[in-house]
Amino acid sequence: MMVIKIGGAEGINYDLFLEDLARHQDQEIVLVHGGSGELNKISTKLGKPPVMVTSASGHVSRRTDKDTLEIYNMVLCGKINKSIVEKLQGLGVNAVGLSGMDGRLLVGKRKDIIITEDGKKKIIRDDYTGKVEQVNVKLIKLLLENGFMPVISPPALSHDNEAINVDGDRAAAMIASALHADILLIFSNVPGLLRDVNDETSLVREIRKENIAEHMSLAKGRMKKKIIGTIEALQQGVSRVVLSDARMQNPITQALEGKGTVIQ
Amino acid sequence: MMVIKIGGAEGINYDLFLEDLARHQDQEIVLVHGGSGELNKISTKLGKPPVMVTSASGHVSRRTDKDTLEIYNMVLCGKINKSIVEKLQGLGVNAVGLSGMDGRLLVGKRKDIIITEDGKKKIIRDDYTGKVEQVNVKLIKLLLENGFMPVISPPALSHDNEAINVDGDRAAAMIASALHADILLIFSNVPGLLRDVNDETSLVREIRKENIAEHMSLAKGRMKKKIIGTIEALQQGVSRVVLSDARMQNPITQALEGKGTVIQ
Repeated sequence: MMVIKIGGAEGINYDLFLEDLARHQDQEIVLVHGGSGELNKISTKLGKPPVMVTSASGHVSRRTDKDTLEIYNMVLCGKINKSIVEKLQGLGVNAVGLSGMDGRLLVGKRKDIIITEDGKKKIIRDDYTGKVEQVNVKLIKLLLENGFMPVISPPALSHDNEAINVDGDRAAAMIASALHADILLIFSNVPGLLRDVNDETSLVREIRKENIAEHMSLAKGRMKKKIIGTIEALQQGVSRVVLSDARMQNPITQALEGKGTVIQ
Repeated sequence: MMVIKIGGAEGINYDLFLEDLARHQDQEIVLVHGGSGELNKISTKLGKPPVMVTSASGHVSRRTDKDTLEIYNMVLCGKINKSIVEKLQGLGVNAVGLSGMDGRLLVGKRKDIIITEDGKKKIIRDDYTGKVEQVNVKLIKLLLENGFMPVISPPALSHDNEAINVDGDRAAAMIASALHADILLIFSNVPGLLRDVNDETSLVREIRKENIAEHMSLAKGRMKKKIIGTIEALQQGVSRVVLSDARMQNPITQALEGKGTVIQ
């Protein structure tokens, strides 16, 4: 079984990506997606431009008040998820799109975001950001066993049954772990983990599982969560993780052949 | 088994409606929803105010070009569907939200819309409106058998695998027929079929199945499709249809007790 995460960053051609995905449909595949790029565009159009907040501990996240959460659900679950399902159906893949709330697929903790303002710590109380703690695989397995391909998107459901904005990379890693998947492929618009973020040729081609923590310092920006997710998945028994480039021709085929950063 | 359709018109309190729904969760229930009111609001905000077109044959539908269809998916599948799932999860109902494209649940025909302009007939070619012709019950049954409550929203999937805007009332009727449901409840913000649309006390309380066609002339506006859906469902073996008012206290309980227009 294979879990594939596709990001929503600029430069990714979903059509070509999904065409390649369809070539691998003889395997059991769970597709997980994000959509931050599209979300930024539409929330700006709706008068709620994205605001990033840095917590007192240095963690950066999207400020997700109730209005933002509504737009988040619309873009991720309505626009991106359904457009992937539509395209996959056109490619002969019987896809079923789900959010983390459906069937309590992804359950987690809503976090208090603590920021520093004028030197004082302040808790933002109306924020709906959180972290997946539990994956309920029953529904995913039911779909796979019956020939459907699950296409999963944040949000997750909090312990108080509220939608929460969660990181898609870590959600994918949790899903791969819970399903005991053999392979986790994490695609974005960079070739993989780079020694120098400004030099795409500085790709780290292979990392042995036991050395992954040492490479954490190379990860910048959104690559950090991919590496945290990778570590979590490997600890939970996933045998191979590939951080790869969705902009390549036949990206899934190439990632399976080892193109990208292979961690095993 | 029971299929329940809830409209998206003004005056409906979803919270109270879903609380009553949760009281009936010991039965197998499929919930179908629309969302035209919310769709009008958000499409206007996004610079695509709703445009209704009247076909040469007198049929009124929402002009659904590609941009409108994208907003339609966002609002119905992303906002309304997920907000229902979130609320039901909070009420202890393990809901799973799906569009008609997921698992090819609702497949139908994209229609050419023929309008009359300056006395000449003209086909609108870039419109994505259609009609459900086929319901694939496999996924719905799988969910019901495993303790999940399906929450289904348009769009459907066309024969060419494109998303199409379809009428929610008729989709619900098709689903009830395909599942051989015992009961179909169709809720909106009116008490049922009225003899005089301006007088809520002029409710037709009961119609015998064989007399339904005679009542067609009473149906105005959106009530027409509810009556067409009712006729289709009764023809396909659904034993009772109730057109009822979602604005009542405990609307589902009351509809099951016969409040509204009961057709059997």
